[in-house]
Amino acid sequence: MVSFESDYIAGAHPEVLKRLGETNLEQLSGYGTDKYCESAREKIRKACGLPQADVEFLAGGTQANAVVISTMLADHEGVIAAETGHVSAHEAGAIEFTGNEVLLLPQKDGKISPETLEKYMAEFYGDLNHEHMTFPGMVYLSYPTEYGTLYSKAELEAIYGICRSYKLTLFIDGARLGYGLASKEAGLTLPELAALCDVFYIGGTKVGALCGEAVVFTKNNKPKHFITSVKKRGALLAKGRLLGVQFDTLFTDELYFRISDHAIEMAERMKQMFLSHGLKLYLDSPTNQQFPIFENGQLEEVSKQIAFSFWEKYDDSHTVVRAATSWSTTEEDLEALEEALGKKA
Amino acid sequence: MVSFESDYIAGAHPEVLKRLGETNLEQLSGYGTDKYCESAREKIRKACGLPQADVEFLAGGTQANAVVISTMLADHEGVIAAETGHVSAHEAGAIEFTGNEVLLLPQKDGKISPETLEKYMAEFYGDLNHEHMTFPGMVYLSYPTEYGTLYSKAELEAIYGICRSYKLTLFIDGARLGYGLASKEAGLTLPELAALCDVFYIGGTKVGALCGEAVVFTKNNKPKHFITSVKKRGALLAKGRLLGVQFDTLFTDELYFRISDHAIEMAERMKQMFLSHGLKLYLDSPTNQQFPIFENGQLEEVSKQIAFSFWEKYDDSHTVVRAATSWSTTEEDLEALEEALGKKA
Amino acid sequence: MVSFESDYIAGAHPEVLKRLGETNLEQLSGYGTDKYCESAREKIRKACGLPQADVEFLAGGTQANAVVISTMLADHEGVIAAETGHVSAHEAGAIEFTGNEVLLLPQKDGKISPETLEKYMAEFYGDLNHEHMTFPGMVYLSYPTEYGTLYSKAELEAIYGICRSYKLTLFIDGARLGYGLASKEAGLTLPELAALCDVFYIGGTKVGALCGEAVVFTKNNKPKHFITSVKKRGALLAKGRLLGVQFDTLFTDELYFRISDHAIEMAERMKQMFLSHGLKLYLDSPTNQQFPIFENGQLEEVSKQIAFSFWEKYDDSHTVVRAATSWSTTEEDLEALEEALGKKA
Amino acid sequence: MVSFESDYIAGAHPEVLKRLGETNLEQLSGYGTDKYCESAREKIRKACGLPQADVEFLAGGTQANAVVISTMLADHEGVIAAETGHVSAHEAGAIEFTGNEVLLLPQKDGKISPETLEKYMAEFYGDLNHEHMTFPGMVYLSYPTEYGTLYSKAELEAIYGICRSYKLTLFIDGARLGYGLASKEAGLTLPELAALCDVFYIGGTKVGALCGEAVVFTKNNKPKHFITSVKKRGALLAKGRLLGVQFDTLFTDELYFRISDHAIEMAERMKQMFLSHGLKLYLDSPTNQQFPIFENGQLEEVSKQIAFSFWEKYDDSHTVVRAATSWSTTEEDLEALEEALGKKA
Repeated sequence: MVSFESDYIAGAHPEVLKRLGETNLEQLSGYGTDKYCESAREKIRKACGLPQADVEFLAGGTQANAVVISTMLADHEGVIAAETGHVSAHEAGAIEFTGNEVLLLPQKDGKISPETLEKYMAEFYGDLNHEHMTFPGMVYLSYPTEYGTLYSKAELEAIYGICRSYKLTLFIDGARLGYGLASKEAGLTLPELAALCDVFYIGGTKVGALCGEAVVFTKNNKPKHFITSVKKRGALLAKGRLLGVQFDTLFTDELYFRISDHAIEMAERMKQMFLSHGLKLYLDSPTNQQFPIFENGQLEEVSKQIAFSFWEKYDDSHTVVRAATSWSTTEEDLEALEEALGKKA
Repeated sequence: MVSFESDYIAGAHPEVLKRLGETNLEQLSGYGTDKYCESAREKIRKACGLPQADVEFLAGGTQANAVVISTMLADHEGVIAAETGHVSAHEAGAIEFTGNEVLLLPQKDGKISPETLEKYMAEFYGDLNHEHMTFPGMVYLSYPTEYGTLYSKAELEAIYGICRSYKLTLFIDGARLGYGLASKEAGLTLPELAALCDVFYIGGTKVGALCGEAVVFTKNNKPKHFITSVKKRGALLAKGRLLGVQFDTLFTDELYFRISDHAIEMAERMKQMFLSHGLKLYLDSPTNQQFPIFENGQLEEVSKQIAFSFWEKYDDSHTVVRAATSWSTTEEDLEALEEALGKKA
Repeated sequence: MVSFESDYIAGAHPEVLKRLGETNLEQLSGYGTDKYCESAREKIRKACGLPQADVEFLAGGTQANAVVISTMLADHEGVIAAETGHVSAHEAGAIEFTGNEVLLLPQKDGKISPETLEKYMAEFYGDLNHEHMTFPGMVYLSYPTEYGTLYSKAELEAIYGICRSYKLTLFIDGARLGYGLASKEAGLTLPELAALCDVFYIGGTKVGALCGEAVVFTKNNKPKHFITSVKKRGALLAKGRLLGVQFDTLFTDELYFRISDHAIEMAERMKQMFLSHGLKLYLDSPTNQQFPIFENGQLEEVSKQIAFSFWEKYDDSHTVVRAATSWSTTEEDLEALEEALGKKA
Repeated sequence: MVSFESDYIAGAHPEVLKRLGETNLEQLSGYGTDKYCESAREKIRKACGLPQADVEFLAGGTQANAVVISTMLADHEGVIAAETGHVSAHEAGAIEFTGNEVLLLPQKDGKISPETLEKYMAEFYGDLNHEHMTFPGMVYLSYPTEYGTLYSKAELEAIYGICRSYKLTLFIDGARLGYGLASKEAGLTLPELAALCDVFYIGGTKVGALCGEAVVFTKNNKPKHFITSVKKRGALLAKGRLLGVQFDTLFTDELYFRISDHAIEMAERMKQMFLSHGLKLYLDSPTNQQFPIFENGQLEEVSKQIAFSFWEKYDDSHTVVRAATSWSTTEEDLEALEEALGKKA
């Protein structure tokens, strides 16, 4: 059985694991104060073109979302997100658990449009008595989105413009950031993305690490005593080196970008494979997650050899699945997929 | 510089890291549902002598404390802890962040006595109008305590008896559990400890893992939909294998106990070294943390070669430090300590 | 200026205030343990036809919503509400503040249909991996809704049937309960409504009291140590008599129902007045809140004499306003409205 | 039976109730925006000698404590309180429920000494690694304390000096403020107290109102969008007039001070009565709460006619009770007490 269920089915990129081994017996200070964390911070700052940025490491995506949102919102504020945003539906109420409301906006292909955001803000500060409503204080986007889609540079510029005019913090969830930036449709570099938001994170868990997300505060806006707030949320690892060494490796010799390129190349080939076998795509994703629509019988047959994630029912006889590539996807994986699809064509 | 600052200055035990490497490219399901998590659960159940216990993995100690306490307390309840308990003072309010009050009891050498607990409970249900007070719902102990001390079996039996009579959940924080059980003064096996509480965790972070604590629910008492609650707290790792493989290795061929024995042997030798060099101990710890009292000038001198943790001022001319051993402490480390102390003797 | 802005523009019904005066100097115990609270509880039980129900008093509607929801949901659960529900949009995140997610369902005229609910539940327990999503644990309805509309008895029965089959708690927000039950379209008595949910509250603030809501737990399902949970939320009044005396009066000689009838009669006349002056209604509300659509120029003119609440823009030249009656609406108020409308006809 | 159980056994001062009646049918805007709230704010500002202060009304003391503390602390901060402070032990975890830690300091007669506070702060910013500990961000005092005792002006000055030097917010809980200021030992006026803290509240519930506390932000330091935060905590009354009219009345013609003087005079006479009947006092309270020590048999006898609150066991044969006077204590009440004590003398 070959699995395309997700982009976190394998362990760490071998380079990452190798560095963990090489540094394993060094005596290092805890809680993110070691030299590898420092080095990783410095390399990330450089990669972002933000020499003054603050970089902090957290263990996972939901944790990063909850920590960033709950430390950066004021008491009277909530966070705007697409109805389909990860924080809206797939984090078991992690944002609400920290006392904060998620303000849902309609989406298309997983994205909030600048027009939708502008209209919402204009109405909020228009005729309504908003003192009894949660104030929008932040916009949460994913890059790529839950559907693998990407905001264009123009869209991000428009959204960030709205954010600045209404004093909204723009937060970009980059759990799959590498796969977004590596997409042929990105039209955006890491420094450009970093310049178009207030805070974002560089996902490690899905892009080569065992765990870990690097939160980048781009505007000298890290909350005061952030580490204490991280500790308060049970999110501070004693052996911060685990995150530091991994990110230090990922940002050495552009490993993060190289493995992202690989995943995107594999995804492109997978996408063509689906199309050449006559499958339709639920939507046109330019990143590492693809959403083919299978006839149910065919899916059952293919699923004997290949594992996908169920995404949603398309109609009574068809099903949408998610097929994800990652740094760990191999030629053999694609060949197995080709063979399985071929049987059914 | 050789460091005895803490028991988390090194990475993982080499066996643990090796297994992470061996299993790295296997395609596994996420969120703790993989076969290594299952295997680790089974081995831990066996080691605890509790074939029906539920075992779940979390990334760190503060996280484990906050998750367990906040999912097992009822709304009107709080958790009893020693004034010096980790949850009371060194977790930046992580328990309170989840909405729960920590009810502080006086301690001696880091321990709550059965008498103190009984008195508190009797008074609470005695004359006071307690409807306006947080009800005690749980007792939190550490084994070993913050001071490296151990509850005797008789003490645990007495405390657990009180807990049962007042329907209090007994929760044992075992961040350093291995080092407690390996102590010559333990007089307690893992199955015995497991039988004397309702929930506890087996610390990995400080005993050979890169990160990870194994929470054991001993009485068929795991909160319903626990994984959802873990997710809600941002504490669910996508690559659950990171914890599963580590604990599976630690509980293969008794590795967990072997490395604990090593740390305790090193600690005993370190303790004798302190005594033979005329140092007094702040208290008589039978585990891997020792608390020698240095004259300030001597400490300054020794600190050129050896790193300790500051613990507290003893008096104007003396300082208490913490010196910890772990699975990673070497002969060379002890020799360096001996040499540094010798210079000053 | 005559105001129809809301149903809480006046103080208490004179009978209520009179009883507060008559009992003012009696020495009574605090926190809801006094004889008036007891008497009010008994009368409410009788009015609900539920001799075993638990009745507790809280000061306001948002407070009642937050206390009930947060004490009755399990940790992994959230509350289902219409997108337009009061808890969804107009309570400044009060439900989220207690750590709980509001799961939004589409609405029509402020109501969730049984079909919508059934579909949502079937999908939730269908193909999705819901362990990473908040579980629906409760349904929140308002009777009447934010739009003044009413669930029919058949709708409530259908919804309650779905709730029972999926083990969802059904909670009815009755901030304006009297005005709902008094409506000609109600087709429902208080005992019937009480039998069709698990918990609801009888609104006092908008129906004759200075403040206060009576929460009725219909199924022997009051959370254990509820008063402690109320205290924990800062919602326990020392002088519980303030709520007890008011509800005791409201449920003496059917005052609650008589003043509700009055408001509904006034609302019917107001509605006819709007229609006879050629105004359209935004929706057909059968209760004390009416939503006429004014041409903007006319609204400006009428607003010189009569105060309404802004509801929403209808189009560029029209505006929807809310006009509410209550127990305190007088003949003179209606005459002033008639006169103001007449000027513009 | 005559009761001295608490200072909230009666309703409102008759003047207060009369004004509620007189204004009852006026049509007023909601949520604290009405003219009585405005007038009350202005009178309170004047009484405090703080023309720029912000004044907001809340319904009760625990609510006021939780709202003020949770809106004024930063995320990494907690609130310092005496072990015996109301927030520490008698609010069912209301402060923790909002996610905040209460940092307990030792007390004497219910008070924290400036020396204790200074020592704690010096140690916190001394040698300890405090990044893993909750930062002290506020000091909470009660005036009078739980034990009826008073901070002297010199003590308040010293404490406020420490607060300023460490940037701690000083918050004074004035649930019984009137009774403190009216004490012969106060040596402090309301403007003086207001100048010696950052935020405090003027208790209404125990000093003549049915409910209500007036929070005074003395330094242009009201949290932004405070009303939204109040709503978020379920603490915003729709009929804000209920609080506005009451405080407007209490601060008209010095009613608040007159009724406080009355209570203190009654308390002084009660105290002398206890002493003249040979009773010892548990501590020397200069305010409206007295703590006589009864021999158990005598207490049982007296309790047939007079109700006190149990405070604590003194020894096996003696009991400490709380006897409170208030604005509503009458000559007849004192005569009944005298008679009951006389029987036993």
